[in-house]
Formats: sequence, C-alpha cells, structure tokens
Amino acid sequence: MLVVMKAQATPEEIKAVCEHIEGLGYRAHPLPGAQRTAIGITGNQGEVDRGNIEELAGVAEVIRVSKPYKLVSRDVKDEDTVIRFAGTDATIGGAKLAMIAGPCSIESREQAFTIAEQVAAAGAQFFRGGAYKPRTSPYAFQGLGEEALKIMAEVRERFGLRIVTEAIDHEALELVAEYADVIQIGARNMQNFSLLKAAGRKRKPVLLKRGLAATLEEFLMAAEYIMSEGNYEVILCERGVRTFADHTRNTLDLSIVPAVQRESHLPILVDPSHGTGKRNKVLPLARAAVAVGADGLIVEVHHQPDKALSDGMQSIVPEQFVQLMDECSQIATVLHRSVPRGIHVSESAAAVSAR
Amino acid sequence: MLVVMKAQATPEEIKAVCEHIEGLGYRAHPLPGAQRTAIGITGNQGEVDRGNIEELAGVAEVIRVSKPYKLVSRDVKDEDTVIRFAGTDATIGGAKLAMIAGPCSIESREQAFTIAEQVAAAGAQFFRGGAYKPRTSPYAFQGLGEEALKIMAEVRERFGLRIVTEAIDHEALELVAEYADVIQIGARNMQNFSLLKAAGRKRKPVLLKRGLAATLEEFLMAAEYIMSEGNYEVILCERGVRTFADHTRNTLDLSIVPAVQRESHLPILVDPSHGTGKRNKVLPLARAAVAVGADGLIVEVHHQPDKALSDGMQSIVPEQFVQLMDECSQIATVLHRSVPRGIHVSESAAAVSAR
Amino acid sequence: MLVVMKAQATPEEIKAVCEHIEGLGYRAHPLPGAQRTAIGITGNQGEVDRGNIEELAGVAEVIRVSKPYKLVSRDVKDEDTVIRFAGTDATIGGAKLAMIAGPCSIESREQAFTIAEQVAAAGAQFFRGGAYKPRTSPYAFQGLGEEALKIMAEVRERFGLRIVTEAIDHEALELVAEYADVIQIGARNMQNFSLLKAAGRKRKPVLLKRGLAATLEEFLMAAEYIMSEGNYEVILCERGVRTFADHTRNTLDLSIVPAVQRESHLPILVDPSHGTGKRNKVLPLARAAVAVGADGLIVEVHHQPDKALSDGMQSIVPEQFVQLMDECSQIATVLHRSVPRGIHVSESAAAVSAR
Amino acid sequence: MLVVMKAQATPEEIKAVCEHIEGLGYRAHPLPGAQRTAIGITGNQGEVDRGNIEELAGVAEVIRVSKPYKLVSRDVKDEDTVIRFAGTDATIGGAKLAMIAGPCSIESREQAFTIAEQVAAAGAQFFRGGAYKPRTSPYAFQGLGEEALKIMAEVRERFGLRIVTEAIDHEALELVAEYADVIQIGARNMQNFSLLKAAGRKRKPVLLKRGLAATLEEFLMAAEYIMSEGNYEVILCERGVRTFADHTRNTLDLSIVPAVQRESHLPILVDPSHGTGKRNKVLPLARAAVAVGADGLIVEVHHQPDKALSDGMQSIVPEQFVQLMDECSQIATVLHRSVPRGIHVSESAAAVSAR
Repeated sequence: MLVVMKAQATPEEIKAVCEHIEGLGYRAHPLPGAQRTAIGITGNQGEVDRGNIEELAGVAEVIRVSKPYKLVSRDVKDEDTVIRFAGTDATIGGAKLAMIAGPCSIESREQAFTIAEQVAAAGAQFFRGGAYKPRTSPYAFQGLGEEALKIMAEVRERFGLRIVTEAIDHEALELVAEYADVIQIGARNMQNFSLLKAAGRKRKPVLLKRGLAATLEEFLMAAEYIMSEGNYEVILCERGVRTFADHTRNTLDLSIVPAVQRESHLPILVDPSHGTGKRNKVLPLARAAVAVGADGLIVEVHHQPDKALSDGMQSIVPEQFVQLMDECSQIATVLHRSVPRGIHVSESAAAVSAR
Repeated sequence: MLVVMKAQATPEEIKAVCEHIEGLGYRAHPLPGAQRTAIGITGNQGEVDRGNIEELAGVAEVIRVSKPYKLVSRDVKDEDTVIRFAGTDATIGGAKLAMIAGPCSIESREQAFTIAEQVAAAGAQFFRGGAYKPRTSPYAFQGLGEEALKIMAEVRERFGLRIVTEAIDHEALELVAEYADVIQIGARNMQNFSLLKAAGRKRKPVLLKRGLAATLEEFLMAAEYIMSEGNYEVILCERGVRTFADHTRNTLDLSIVPAVQRESHLPILVDPSHGTGKRNKVLPLARAAVAVGADGLIVEVHHQPDKALSDGMQSIVPEQFVQLMDECSQIATVLHRSVPRGIHVSESAAAVSAR
Repeated sequence: MLVVMKAQATPEEIKAVCEHIEGLGYRAHPLPGAQRTAIGITGNQGEVDRGNIEELAGVAEVIRVSKPYKLVSRDVKDEDTVIRFAGTDATIGGAKLAMIAGPCSIESREQAFTIAEQVAAAGAQFFRGGAYKPRTSPYAFQGLGEEALKIMAEVRERFGLRIVTEAIDHEALELVAEYADVIQIGARNMQNFSLLKAAGRKRKPVLLKRGLAATLEEFLMAAEYIMSEGNYEVILCERGVRTFADHTRNTLDLSIVPAVQRESHLPILVDPSHGTGKRNKVLPLARAAVAVGADGLIVEVHHQPDKALSDGMQSIVPEQFVQLMDECSQIATVLHRSVPRGIHVSESAAAVSAR
Repeated sequence: MLVVMKAQATPEEIKAVCEHIEGLGYRAHPLPGAQRTAIGITGNQGEVDRGNIEELAGVAEVIRVSKPYKLVSRDVKDEDTVIRFAGTDATIGGAKLAMIAGPCSIESREQAFTIAEQVAAAGAQFFRGGAYKPRTSPYAFQGLGEEALKIMAEVRERFGLRIVTEAIDHEALELVAEYADVIQIGARNMQNFSLLKAAGRKRKPVLLKRGLAATLEEFLMAAEYIMSEGNYEVILCERGVRTFADHTRNTLDLSIVPAVQRESHLPILVDPSHGTGKRNKVLPLARAAVAVGADGLIVEVHHQPDKALSDGMQSIVPEQFVQLMDECSQIATVLHRSVPRGIHVSESAAAVSAR
C-alpha cells in the first residue's frame, strides 16, 4: 500500500500520517520525491483499510501496489535515486557514473596505497578492497579482516576515495559499517536475509550484488529486504550469472540493467571483473556496461595481478584501468552522461596506446 | 595432507600424533575407520614437512591429498559415514534409509502434532518443520521462531521423532542447536561461510542443502567448511537446481547422488518437495531418489496443504506419504536397503489405493 | 478444435466428418480411443465455425483446445498411446517397458552381432545403433551409413530385435524409414522442423529426443509437428539437458517424465547414457528412470567400450546391462509394470554379482 | 595440420602443394593471408606424415594444430576475415560495422518495401527478412517461401541492399542461395550438420547463429563444418542463450564477442532483437554490442510491430532504428570503427529526439 501525499503537504502532515500508520501496527516509509512525498506501508499481511488514511490531512490518494516489491519500485518513487557522500562530490546514481576500483583483497598497506594512488589518478572516486573474503575453500586466504579496514580508512584519508568493502556476516558488518562508506553484500549472500535486514538497519549505503542464480524479482526483493528496515540507499550490481557457457567464469547479463531501470529507481552498477573472470574481457565488457546504461562500474585492479592472493586472473593492471576510464568516458558522452576525469588522463592514455 | 595410522596404533599414539600436528600450528582431524584411523591435517597454506610425522609411533604413512576437499573425501575416510542418535535406532547413512517428513513451517502446536502423528505412524523417524523461514519477500510469513522450536521439542517427546529444522543465521543457530537433533542449513545459505563455520563448531549433525547453482565441488567444499571446524557429522541434501526448465520449480539433479557417493563418505538425501515444487511430482521423484541410491528423503507433508502458510503447492497429504513410504520401501529392497516400517502400513496403503 | 464423436458413431460417420473438415480446407486427424473417436482439426489460423460440424451425424460435441499443442494432448486422446510392431510382442507404451540397447555407432557386422546377441539374451526387444552420427566435429567418425543399416537389418533377422536408428537429415530419413523399425530424431534436430515434418509423413514410429535446451512445451510442440503430418506414433525421450552442473555431461531431468505423462498420451523413454555421459552413472539413473515411471529405456551397450569409435565413456558392458535389466525389472514390479525377461537372466545376474 | 607457405611462394607452388595433399587422400584448404598463404589439411583421422610436405617447393613449415577447430582458428589465419560483396562497398568484418535490418517475416511486397526504404535511408547496407520461418508451432505462420525471396530480390534492385535470409532446410537452401546474398542458418539448426555441410558447398557467405545452448567450442565447430566443405565466408552471430533468467526471452551473452575474436578470424555480429525479445531492450543492448566490439548488428525493424505476423514484441520501429544507428555510430568511433551513414541521418535523429 502506498500513500501519495499532496504536493503542498507539510512535513508535519507527513509525520502525522506516518504516526497514524505506525499506530495501526504497520511500518511507514516516507520517500520524498521531486514533486511530492510518497509513504510506503509495509508489515501488513493482508489488506490495509484505506478509508481512514485517505481522510488524513495532506493525503492525495492511497493506492495498492500489486508488485511483490514495493519500496524498490518506481510505482512508489519515480525519480532515480542518487546517493551522495557528505563532503565530497562523489555520487552513485544520476548522470555522473560511479567508478569503483581496487584490488580483490587488501594484502598490505603498501599494496593498497600503490593501487589506490593509481586508480584515484585515473578518476575513480571509490576504492574497493576485500577485508573479509568469501572463499569456496576453507583453506584459502580469507582476508586480513579489521587490519584491512584500517588500511582502507587510511586510503580514504590520503586519496579522498570513498571505501567500498564486503561484509560477509553480522560481525563483519559492524566493523564494515564503522570503517567503510559503502557496505557490500556479496552474490553468495544475496539471499542471506538475516544479513540483509541487519544491513537495512545501518545508515550507510549498501551495494548488493546479484546472486549467481537470481531472477530479477529475487534481486529486487533482496533490495526490498534492506529497504524494509529503513535503509533506502541501496545500489544494485550485476556481476554475472551461472550458465552452461564456459568461455567466461560467469555470464554477464547486461540486459538486467535496463530491466532494473524500468522497474526500480535504484542505481545499478556492473562488475565486469567477476562477470567475466578473465583479464582480457574486462575492458570490452566495461565498455558494454556503460553503453547499456549502467550507473557505474566496480572493477578489480592490481599492480601485480600474477602475485595477487585472490582473483589475479581477472584483475586488470592500472594502465588498463586508465584506458578503461578513457574509453568509458567517451561512451558515457553518447548517453549524455559523464565519467569523472582523472589527473593526467590524456598523458597516461597516450602512454598506454604507445606501448 | 593425511596421516594414515597403522591398524594396531593405540589411542595414545593417535593422540600423540594429533598433538604433534597441532604443535606445528596446524589442525588435526582424527577420523576413525573400520580398519584404521586417519588424521587429516588442515590449516596449512603450503606443504607440510612430512619427514618428522612419518617417524612418529603408530604412523603407517603420510600422503598428500590432491583434491581441494579433504575431510569430506573418500581419500581420507573410505567407509560411509553413519550418523547415530543416542537412545534411538534412528540413523542417517548406511543400509537403512532416513525418512524425514513434516510441514514446511510449524504453524501451531495442533498442526505440528496432527502431522507428526501421521508421519510417525507411516514410519518416519525424523520430523522436519520450519521455525525460521528464509522467504523471498520480507513481507511473507517468516516462521514462529523459538515457539516453533518448543513445539518440535514436544513432538520429539510425544512421538519419539528426531527433529530437523533450519538455522538461518547465527542467532537462530544457537537456538536450533539447543532444541533440535539435526541443524539444517538451507540452499540459500550453502555458501554463507560464516554460518557454515559456526555450525561446524556445534556438536549436532548438520544437514546441508545444495545451493541452487552449486557445482559438486562447491557443494563438497561447503561441507568441508563445516568439517574443518571439527563437526564431522554432515548430511548432504539435493533439492533441485535452477535451470531454464519451467515444468518444475527446480530441476532435481539425481545424478549428484552417485557423484557424491563416489567422492565422499558423507550421506546424501534428496528433497523431492523443493526439488519439484509440485505435489503431483513428489511421489514419482521420491521413488526415483530411492532408486538412484539416496540415503534417505526429506519430504514436506501437510494435512491441509491448501491452507499451509508456506509451500502448500508442494506438500503432500499424509495418505500420500503412506503410499510414498510403501513404494520407497519396496524399491529400497531392490538395492538391499530398507525403509523403516510404520504401524498399520499395509492397512493404510490399502486404504489409499482403494480410493 | 476437437470433434468428439458419439460412442456409437459408425466408421462411415467418422469418415464423413473428416471429409467435411477437409472440405473446409482444414486437416482432420481421427484419433480412435477406447470409448470413442476424437477428430483433431489442424490447419486453421483462426476460429473454425463449429456450427455445421456439430450437426453432422455421429458428432457428440465440438470443443476448443486451448493449449498450443493439440494432437499430443490428453485433451484430444486420453488413453496412453501404445505402439505395436506387427509380428512381434514388442511394444512401446503401456504396462510393459520398452528396453532399447546397443552400441552408439555400428562399427562392423561382428561388433553389432556380438552386442545384439547379448542384449537380446538379457531381454531387450529393441536394438539401437548409429548409422549416421551427428558429431560436433566434422573430422570425427560420422558413421557407416547404409552399410550400418544393412547390418542392423541382419540383426533383426538373426535376433528378432526391432531396430532403432537415427535419421540426421532427409536423405538419411529415406533409408532409415526403409531399413529400421523406429526412426530416431536426435536432440540436436528436435527443432529441425523440416525433418520433423518429413518424419511425420513416414509410416514408422518416430523416437524424438528432447533438445538440450528444450522446455516441456517446445518438446511437445516438436512431437505435434510430426503428428500434424499424420504420423501418430511418436515416442518421446528425455536424454539430459544442458546446465551449469559439470559432474555429468548433461543433467538428466527425470521430472519431465511425469510432466509429459500428465499432458500427453505419448510414451516417454529415458536415455541414461547420454543423460549422464558416464558409465558409472548409467545403472543408478536407469533404476531411477524406471522408478519415476518412464515407459522404457534406451541404453548404450558395448562389449569393448574403450575401443568404441564414439561415446565409449558412457557405454556399459553387456554384463552391466544384464544387471540393469534385473534391477529395473524388480523396480518395474513396484509400479505394477514389467520388463521383458531375457534368457538365463538369473544365471547371468548371479554371475555378475559373483564377480 | 597446417602448411605455412613462404612469403614469396608462387601461386604455382601453392597449387602444387594442394595437389600433393589431395593426392594423399586429404583435403587442402588454401587460406591466403596478408603476408603469406597457409594451407589447412583436413580429412585426416590420425597423423599426417609431414616429412614429404616440408620438402615441397615454397613450403616454410608444417605445424600441428592442437585445437579441435582448425579452419576457423587464428592459428591457421591470423588476419580478420573481411567479406566483400561485388559491386558494392558493403562489407562484413573489418573496421566498418555491418548493419543488417528488416522485418522478422516478409509479409507482403508493400511491407518489405516500406521497411527497406527506411532502413536503407538510416544507413543499413543489408536487408533481413524471413521467407522460411522456423516456428515452435506447426500451426503458426511459416513464411511466404519463394514469394518472399522474390520480393527481397526486388528490394535489392530498388534500394541497393544486400539480402540476408534464413535457409531452414536443404530445399530452402537451394532457393536462398539463388536469391539472397547471405545465407542465414538459424540457432535451432546450428548443429544440423547436414545443412551446415550443404551450406559449405554453396559459394555465398553464411551467417551462422549461435544455438540456444551452444558452447564457444560447439559454435566454432559448427562454423568449421561449413568451412571444411570449402566455403570460407562464415559470419558468426550471437543471439542470446537460454538460461533461468526470465526478464528477457534469452540471455544475450556479449562476452562471446571478444572470446570469438580471440580464437577466430571470422566476423561476429550480435542480434539484440532475439537476444532480448523485448522492444525496449533492443537499443541499450545494440549499443552494448557495438561497445563490446561486435562487427555489426542484425536487428528486427517493422513499421507496424503490433500487426507483425511474427516477433512483433521484439521489433523496433524505423524511427528507433534511426536512433540506434546514430548512437551506435558514435560508440563505434570510440573503438576507431564506423557505422555506415544514412541519408538525412541528423535530421531524422533530431526528429526522434524532439518527440
């Protein structure tokens, strides 16, 4: 159920409607829009009696939402969600693409700083790096944990990059929410509903990766879990699905980008690194992701990929990232969007093409 | 790395070898077999120096395990794992099939008792019922929680059934481990490595369901996560994978049963309810699962499936479960195995066929 | 559209209705049932005017068929189709399972006779063998062609086995229809509609294998193509679909068996050889196929699988086929069905188990 | 096996080597390159004795090809294949993208001319249109057959467009090869090896669509079938594969584009119409296809998609095609490639954006 407020409704009226809804035992989610505020109602098993609500001051109409997802839906909020980061001009969603880059795992302060310096120079506003790694084998490198989070906090200080890192469980979530700017929920946890709800109670944006076998509806419902707890800053991310095809590690499903944008106001990024699993396919698929209309990219970059403790096969080197930023920037222009410009971009790009 | 002890090695010698391994900073996993004990070594990133270990008293040989999974492997333990439940003759693994039945969700004491009585009468030794439900939608019924666990504890008292129920997160795990006899980890959590490790620190058997897009190797590695923490009582369960096919909710992959049995000593069950998602397909696929060699079944049974709060579409009625037990019992005989016999089975079965 | 004739309608009345339909420019398909004859009408793009037809002598009612498939549907013919072979007691469909066995490819007269003798002794009534092989590589062995067909005709003479072999194109179809008893259409040709229609104009039964990515509806529609040309003796065959799972060559989807049987009157077989691609999985999946309710099996048997020119990996040896027949026979009994008995079966089986 | 000729080898020497190879009972495939000619040898089951061949005049070296595909491989021919059409500047392969557009089915002369005029004006050099339609249902519109071919021949005369149309069987192939400029083999026939070989004996380029469940290797092997018969002008085309995802009709696997380009010298196009099955996704995926590096597009365009006899759901209108050409042209520039320019393009595009 969705309460659409009148354009001229006052904050007090909105607050009163929310209190009325909560008083009925439901949960109210005020969602401000450009023209007017809508208030989503969740927590109802059956039908909410709309009669009284329609009579409250400031209410324009009460409408039923027939889709299984509500808060993620454009029915509830038509304008694109744009996530802002206080004190910076970094955004996720909107005309400017969000570019997130960094190593699969934080391996050392030196490694992190080396890579961060280069991706920042190339224009990335976000630094990614794993502190807690979900690994198929219990005997594989599991990440440096809080030590990695501290290193990334230093990276933020030094290079002005916002930090994106994965929380693999409730314990990690507490620390990630403390140190990072964006909490990542990995593909294998896309339906870890307990973790989704906990992330929904944090007040930091959540980057939610699509599960390996998730349908569009399941993907949006996972976002709905986070939003239903009151955290409306959710960023979706396509990272490839599992199919019979064996020429890439996963099959990157770029059609989910316009499909999400049709249904939902949430931004959607693409991860061409996990989506292909092969260094030589990252650039072409990154270009394609921007061309299809993605709101940004998350890319694995490592200065010594052959020595990386995880995912070296799919990490590109910093020089390739410069080229990626350059090409994506040009493609973004075609869609009337932009990619943040790095320093010395043209020189670096020239250097690369001269090789 | 695997240390194979001599057939006549004493408990003291085994203990001494374990202590030696732990002293080297690794973890030792003594795995008693019919003929001799093997000791798995985990926690080593690289090569363990085998020289000294081979010289210890009672050691027959030290061999490298080349597969990514170790403790789950038949290389480490050749005989089938049989899980026993103190004070009962219920087992999982071995010649006698384990039959687990009950509703998707525990809805009330009355509902649970009604169903439990009937599945017990039909021969089931285990009662399943959801207390914590992982639901695609945050607005769907999420289970009764601890209240459901208490009801199931009463069911155990009243009908002598062992209790199987799912732990969806760490918090639920604590309670499930307290009340239930078998801790279930659901398909969506198969790669929730944090939860797997926590379950590995409990001392109750863990029933691990295959993820919707999990390969055989990933499935076994998930079991390895549990075992690497010292809990060697893991039960695998095929419940259908996600494919393009749309005539069933999932595609039940029965070939995983002989594939698991070739690689691993762990028992493997089949869930024909989630595996098909359709009531009219549960019986045929249950028969097929027994015929392919599964070590048991887990089946959703509800006396009023059309009123069930979850999964009614795929729940069979108690009379169908009687027929299922009867047919599966006959097929088990062909494989020189047996299904536990209920009371009045022949009469009930006769009643069903007379309909 | 379907014309249901009265139970007492005469052959002349049925003929008159068919002629009336054909006179309207449609195609009439008389489908005799146990109680009454139904006449399917195809060839109509839009709505057929039912008015006049209902007035014809012997017509009980005219009903619309809403499903995309008509002639394959139980709406049109409720009783199971049983295909008979003149001069033999071999059948496909009905209570007695059809067992088809033989090598992937016919390699020589000696090879074919050696295998045929053994599978006949074990009870198979049908001999399979490839004369024309659809191979992924143009440089792989493509079959002996007509020479193989002649060898199989000799096999029929010598051992009384009915012959099943694949027609890969129109040219092969002419020869296969001449020499063989059952025309096989392979999985890769399931939507080779031109070949389906040509097979529909032959008057020999057609065994149609499910395509690697075919849905239930597409599978039934492919059968409809054959039937729409007037050949009503179609046998469906599940042989595994393509998924992400890599522990078998294909994923055998046994749930399609009850799904087909619910929708269609056509018999459905299972091919556990292609369905798994691994010799050690053929027996368990063959048992499962019988248990799920398949109307028979098609199995690759080779006396020297390691020297086979194709598919040796998935061929079982004759002794394993004896065991397969024995176990499947026992399981069939549970479903009140039977498997044909070979000569000396108990002795051979005893010999196998004594190994 | 591959014979690499010296750079200065004469045509007579090349011919002599081919004759020598054929004299040994193999098949010789001379493949001219920019620097030198290579001669592929096929038809050998085992090892070819390389000794004598290496001694022939003009031979630089004889090398083994270890991959299952030979003639399609860059090992045999390193430069990109560019297909030219006599008397026109239309090409497929190389820096200029090939743009193929037109209706799913040719429905009438008027329909074909209306659409052809608009796609030609927008810059397309190729006109597609179905004369023979592979339809899931035998009762669906199957195409106008030769009448459609004649209409397309008129389209070529009138608008200078090269004609691309599908041959669904041997009979249609004869006519398509007579009337059309490019013979299309559809996805469902990708492993109709008999048809592939027949197309390989024609001397017109063949556009081969990827099967719904085809791996990269199978796709390339299907092209190898065509080439092994002597037709070296093969164009590959990705058109979506079948997965669990249900937000599009198929899942467009753009990563196959760089994967093909790494292995093979053949051009590869993308079909965003079948690849998505939804009109609103054609433009974004067309842009992505160009950005990933495809050598061109094949797109369904219909001026009245709601009245189309087939595939109306996925056909774009001519105005959208103008926009597609415009956006793809800009993206192609980023990759240092170009899209052919239509007449009045800027005006038309302006008209569209003004809507």
